[in-house]
Amino acid sequence: MKEILIPTLGRALFDSPLHLGRVRGDARPDFIGDNSRVLNNIETGLDSQDENILFEKAGPRSSIFFDPQRTRAAVVTCGGLCPGLNNVIRSLVLELYHNYGLKDIQGICYGYQGMAENPFKPMIPLTPGLVDTIDRQGGSILGCSRGSPSVETMVDFIARQKIDILFTVGGDGTQRGALEITQELARRGMQVAVVGIPKTVDNDIRYVDRTFGMTTAIDRARDVLDAAHAEAKSYPNGIVLVKLMGRDSGFIATGATLASQQVNFVLIPELSFHLSGEGGFLPVLKGRILERQHALIVVAEGAGQDLVPGDRVLDASGNLLNRDIGPFLKEQIAVYFKQENIPVSLKYIDPSYYIRSVAAGTDDSILCDLYARHAVHAAMSGRTQMIVALRRQFVHVPMEMATQGRQKVSLEGDVWRSVLSATGQPAQFHGELL
Amino acid sequence: MKEILIPTLGRALFDSPLHLGRVRGDARPDFIGDNSRVLNNIETGLDSQDENILFEKAGPRSSIFFDPQRTRAAVVTCGGLCPGLNNVIRSLVLELYHNYGLKDIQGICYGYQGMAENPFKPMIPLTPGLVDTIDRQGGSILGCSRGSPSVETMVDFIARQKIDILFTVGGDGTQRGALEITQELARRGMQVAVVGIPKTVDNDIRYVDRTFGMTTAIDRARDVLDAAHAEAKSYPNGIVLVKLMGRDSGFIATGATLASQQVNFVLIPELSFHLSGEGGFLPVLKGRILERQHALIVVAEGAGQDLVPGDRVLDASGNLLNRDIGPFLKEQIAVYFKQENIPVSLKYIDPSYYIRSVAAGTDDSILCDLYARHAVHAAMSGRTQMIVALRRQFVHVPMEMATQGRQKVSLEGDVWRSVLSATGQPAQFHGELL
Amino acid sequence: MKEILIPTLGRALFDSPLHLGRVRGDARPDFIGDNSRVLNNIETGLDSQDENILFEKAGPRSSIFFDPQRTRAAVVTCGGLCPGLNNVIRSLVLELYHNYGLKDIQGICYGYQGMAENPFKPMIPLTPGLVDTIDRQGGSILGCSRGSPSVETMVDFIARQKIDILFTVGGDGTQRGALEITQELARRGMQVAVVGIPKTVDNDIRYVDRTFGMTTAIDRARDVLDAAHAEAKSYPNGIVLVKLMGRDSGFIATGATLASQQVNFVLIPELSFHLSGEGGFLPVLKGRILERQHALIVVAEGAGQDLVPGDRVLDASGNLLNRDIGPFLKEQIAVYFKQENIPVSLKYIDPSYYIRSVAAGTDDSILCDLYARHAVHAAMSGRTQMIVALRRQFVHVPMEMATQGRQKVSLEGDVWRSVLSATGQPAQFHGELL
Amino acid sequence: MKEILIPTLGRALFDSPLHLGRVRGDARPDFIGDNSRVLNNIETGLDSQDENILFEKAGPRSSIFFDPQRTRAAVVTCGGLCPGLNNVIRSLVLELYHNYGLKDIQGICYGYQGMAENPFKPMIPLTPGLVDTIDRQGGSILGCSRGSPSVETMVDFIARQKIDILFTVGGDGTQRGALEITQELARRGMQVAVVGIPKTVDNDIRYVDRTFGMTTAIDRARDVLDAAHAEAKSYPNGIVLVKLMGRDSGFIATGATLASQQVNFVLIPELSFHLSGEGGFLPVLKGRILERQHALIVVAEGAGQDLVPGDRVLDASGNLLNRDIGPFLKEQIAVYFKQENIPVSLKYIDPSYYIRSVAAGTDDSILCDLYARHAVHAAMSGRTQMIVALRRQFVHVPMEMATQGRQKVSLEGDVWRSVLSATGQPAQFHGELL
Repeated sequence: MKEILIPTLGRALFDSPLHLGRVRGDARPDFIGDNSRVLNNIETGLDSQDENILFEKAGPRSSIFFDPQRTRAAVVTCGGLCPGLNNVIRSLVLELYHNYGLKDIQGICYGYQGMAENPFKPMIPLTPGLVDTIDRQGGSILGCSRGSPSVETMVDFIARQKIDILFTVGGDGTQRGALEITQELARRGMQVAVVGIPKTVDNDIRYVDRTFGMTTAIDRARDVLDAAHAEAKSYPNGIVLVKLMGRDSGFIATGATLASQQVNFVLIPELSFHLSGEGGFLPVLKGRILERQHALIVVAEGAGQDLVPGDRVLDASGNLLNRDIGPFLKEQIAVYFKQENIPVSLKYIDPSYYIRSVAAGTDDSILCDLYARHAVHAAMSGRTQMIVALRRQFVHVPMEMATQGRQKVSLEGDVWRSVLSATGQPAQFHGELL
Repeated sequence: MKEILIPTLGRALFDSPLHLGRVRGDARPDFIGDNSRVLNNIETGLDSQDENILFEKAGPRSSIFFDPQRTRAAVVTCGGLCPGLNNVIRSLVLELYHNYGLKDIQGICYGYQGMAENPFKPMIPLTPGLVDTIDRQGGSILGCSRGSPSVETMVDFIARQKIDILFTVGGDGTQRGALEITQELARRGMQVAVVGIPKTVDNDIRYVDRTFGMTTAIDRARDVLDAAHAEAKSYPNGIVLVKLMGRDSGFIATGATLASQQVNFVLIPELSFHLSGEGGFLPVLKGRILERQHALIVVAEGAGQDLVPGDRVLDASGNLLNRDIGPFLKEQIAVYFKQENIPVSLKYIDPSYYIRSVAAGTDDSILCDLYARHAVHAAMSGRTQMIVALRRQFVHVPMEMATQGRQKVSLEGDVWRSVLSATGQPAQFHGELL
Repeated sequence: MKEILIPTLGRALFDSPLHLGRVRGDARPDFIGDNSRVLNNIETGLDSQDENILFEKAGPRSSIFFDPQRTRAAVVTCGGLCPGLNNVIRSLVLELYHNYGLKDIQGICYGYQGMAENPFKPMIPLTPGLVDTIDRQGGSILGCSRGSPSVETMVDFIARQKIDILFTVGGDGTQRGALEITQELARRGMQVAVVGIPKTVDNDIRYVDRTFGMTTAIDRARDVLDAAHAEAKSYPNGIVLVKLMGRDSGFIATGATLASQQVNFVLIPELSFHLSGEGGFLPVLKGRILERQHALIVVAEGAGQDLVPGDRVLDASGNLLNRDIGPFLKEQIAVYFKQENIPVSLKYIDPSYYIRSVAAGTDDSILCDLYARHAVHAAMSGRTQMIVALRRQFVHVPMEMATQGRQKVSLEGDVWRSVLSATGQPAQFHGELL
Repeated sequence: MKEILIPTLGRALFDSPLHLGRVRGDARPDFIGDNSRVLNNIETGLDSQDENILFEKAGPRSSIFFDPQRTRAAVVTCGGLCPGLNNVIRSLVLELYHNYGLKDIQGICYGYQGMAENPFKPMIPLTPGLVDTIDRQGGSILGCSRGSPSVETMVDFIARQKIDILFTVGGDGTQRGALEITQELARRGMQVAVVGIPKTVDNDIRYVDRTFGMTTAIDRARDVLDAAHAEAKSYPNGIVLVKLMGRDSGFIATGATLASQQVNFVLIPELSFHLSGEGGFLPVLKGRILERQHALIVVAEGAGQDLVPGDRVLDASGNLLNRDIGPFLKEQIAVYFKQENIPVSLKYIDPSYYIRSVAAGTDDSILCDLYARHAVHAAMSGRTQMIVALRRQFVHVPMEMATQGRQKVSLEGDVWRSVLSATGQPAQFHGELL
């Protein structure tokens, strides 16, 4: 089976300062052996869909590449906000500082824009005191931004600032940028470790079972759906349409639907659907209204992009922006029921930033701590050009693999099957695949 | 001092079935004497602003007008949703059923529209079993609606359904409607008690210190402001504009601002303001951005109506709808900073229905219970054409007084003074009163 | 009517730096006139119970006693924790610093113990930066403690540290201590203003409608009662007994009971009750179990002190400690049902510190801000020997009046009447008053 | 590699009524093939610890054993409460009723005790209407209990009540009981499917990555730890000891510690520790107090059983009850610091039932839905003597395997390593393994 190994900057010559064991059964956590691998495909039989490859298992190595006394680490948080950014920053700092004894840790301000020639703000020295309680705040104490200076400018910055380790906390755009940075670093022969931590409420990074922040976002989305459900049920023919985040993946929408158990229709980017015609969404919705007098609809932001008129443009990070399906769909519903001569009470809720700017919930707090500490272990061992990924276990995934395409909700898997059961919606609207 | 008495349907000839005392000091709650009054104006000195009148104190009377064995009560919930509607329904039912022994209680569906000749749904019999746990759900199990059939149609409904007591749970529009119903009932010589319970997240009912639901709405709004603050601080020159409910009164906006302590500007309907010119809002905002690089702005939905172009229309309940200040202000900010050549990260959050459709919080749950039980006492004593009001104590206020004008945030009072301190914003933007 | 005036340190000769108005109608908050009074008794008729006195209205005065440039203020938080301590500290600092321009603000550590000759920790300079986000943390950043050094030692500390204004945040014991401090200060001829802010989750300070923290504590207690209710209902003959705080007053217990609406019995210190004999608590509980198969009981910590064997001792603050009614009552229930040969599933929950150590909720956050700013206005005007009190309006109450006796739940008032209705429990257990 | 197959009642002759696909790529969820397996051990290399076995993949089969028209299903919930019980009941009912068309679903009351000859309560017919909103309530609408009648009595009950499918929702004791039931059923030749759903906040079921309810319990425990941390920090030499649930496994304690990030010591059953002597817990705690003046300690209920004097007894379910480490440890700390002459403020919090009786949080709500639907698929296919388990994927695990021993926190794994980092506590107290 193919082993996916991670490039390193060179031989790890220093003994790890971590107080860990090397033997089983001594009731003490162990270093991870360099030959430990984790299977990507854990199923056999015809239902198996994943590639038969082996990832390196993440964790502390007994030998490390960087001398903690002479190493400067830096952290950058990029893109949109995500619950848990501050938790990740905090645990990176604490693991580096207390466990590895690396004292020179810098925070780059406002994402990659903070690596411009003249950034908006200088770097912030990160200490345990500064980060002590930040895990209970939403946002990022370092700030974020979209877009970036040229890769040359950013590598100039790394060289000028004498950064040895760079943690890039961000989504696929960020990690693509990080990959380019590592390529330019290699070109210049600079021995800098760049380790990514996948950050996205959208959960759309490949080979990552769960990115931090998604669970918290789903939790908030459930609250919004509860309110929406009350609105729908409390008015005659009440219809409430809620738009949820997720870019081109329906994870937040499906998760919130399963958690809420009150949603009647959920439209996600993975599902192609027709609005009109027999079996189309609007006639099916009409059937529901006539039968039950209320309906709660979730639409993920990337859904129905073939239906919304207009051009799609790029944002500053180079992501293709979605056309706004929310108001479009609301309008379509309004027009349709007017045509059908059925009075409805139609409302639209777009919680927008509200679900992503909050502090990490309990489960995400645990996850962030584990992600951050594993990223430190990887970087200290001299690994680079990789992200840390929770793939049943924590593993190392090359940036290149992680950024080729995006993870999607499988329309043939367990979760979507449960969503269909929980909503009662048909598997297709119109059944015609586009 | 003027006493504000409440009309009754006739002499209260029945002994109250409540197990209450009549003497002080027996460690047993007492009936309220019919001569008990509560002062409206509790201040002396030049700062006093309230009218020198006396309201009847609310509470159970030792003699009641209606025979519980032969009385049918009905509940109607009108207008927009408000946290606590189900709590009020529940406590009305429990007090009538268990304490007064009145078993025939009906729920009118979908507000006054449920009193049409052919309502969307028939009335629902309300029993303790049905309402047992509804206090933990948002919305109204009876449903709401805006608008109403004609007063004649509604009184026909009352006559046809043999309703003796009608509880009207709603805002000022609802209570104006209820007042008309009582006038028509009187015209027809029908002995029906109509008692209102003031319901509005907006807290804009006169002579009412606190309507139920407002505290819960402010609590949710605080959560939204926390998220908005994280967004503002996490981007270079981050500006977040949050629109909050409140119709023509700024209570939710000011309450959420004081609770959050993170808001930099709050614009409420009571405050007239200019956008441009020296001392105008936009230049002041620019000063803040240049100095602190982020700003969190709250705008109440009724604010700046003189600035937004377009006509104001009426909704189905006859309320003058506000023009949408939110997107207008967002646009004005965007254009202004573009003109000023200052790049900003501008975001807009409209939590809309989310803050009003949730279940009642702890404090509102207590308040709802007290409102509902006092309404029952008033109705059973034969009082009508009144609402129950928390005016330091629970009192009876004639519908006519309660619906003449709306309660506003005093720009000269304690709360607004604290808001100015907590935000640091100037008392006026431009200082010119319009 | 008797006016209750507050002693001042001397004539207020400085103009207030606050940007407030002096005229009505200019849409700008005003200074409060020195002749403004608030009625203590707002009822007429036989039901009225409050004294006919007038309190000074709290608020900013146009002339102040202290020169902000040459004044040192200090804050001390004493006794048990209470949600909102940090909010109060924060708003005191911000109002003094930003509005009055007083920059020398000190925090005394660990309550009055921090005024010992050699305190555990030195004072902490309080700045806006330090307190910026503390309102979202439970506890007190200054620390608390019970007990105090001698009044002479504390006044020595005040003299040595050149403190001009002392804010004493604490319960009745704390304010009694503060009163002694003011008396010793007067004896020594020291012009120091001592202004108290009433702090207690128990709400037992006289002339104070609502102390900060109580609402938050009730909110948490409701969560505990929800869990307890689930335990009670989920086991055959399930009985859950929950002990709630409140010292000798039943406010948390009654508030949580009304908010929860699931409690079947609530025993508070104000209510004398018998355990056995006809009409006693245990036989009534048995009746409920036989009829409904489950029961949720709340007992306030100070209830039934005449029933629990053992001596009552004083804590370090001089408060008479309650004997532990919780385990005693649990044991009595267990023994009784064993005697009666009825198998029950009996559980006991004591949330203890959990309900008081949390951050302030939304409503308490608003309340804390108002309390703190009013305390600053009073102190800057040269008032002393007083507490700020929310008595419908914010008013000034002499420490001596506030600390004579404690506020109790009235067994003859609205709230207890609603509690009896919500629980269905009899007004007395056995009916015999002790 | 060894395949772990599940016994079936016979050939599945009926076509499944589920509207699922059989081909990949048709954007429609598929039936699961009977040959699909999931690897138990997903690691290679020396760090791998799991057995090399294959479990059956869970999910709907295209052929089913039971005719929905003629099948009666029953649900029983046993043992202690756990967040999510009602969610599981609800999703079982909805999946059976709406998707499989099985209308005869019964709820057995109060656990296995409800299968006695004369149970406390008769069975409750479960319908979609009845279970519609129960997922938002803590506890179990069916009730629970410990212990059980004899296996013969329970199988008599099954026979008498003509139950074809029995879902046993409970921990390892419950599933051991279910295993005995299946053995007795086989002895009598009865074709009844018994499918278990692992329920325990303690997460101690073997081969189950995550049981429902644990995440919610950890979430509540985090709230308690926040309050405890505030108490510890707010008093001089403040020590707070919090006891958390978990029986003989430390999952809640470790999870809450990682989520809180404020705990200084966590003692779990898996970790043997000494109290005194160099390197013992008390001297290490003393060092912390002298250095930092406060400490937050978590002790799991099963920890230190070798230290607490007294006998261990069995509960009604046959579980060995733990001796109460909480009060014992509190006393040891108090005595030790008295001996050392160091005054401390020591507090003890036992949230007990509070963390397990609450409604399921967001993540557990999703998990419960998936567990329940997979259990239905397994039972309808005729499988028996198995539990549904989330083992990276949902799989079938024989009851016998799942109940041999309990799952423990690995002291050599990722999570414990992170706990040591987050707390800073030494890997051992004294280092001597007992």
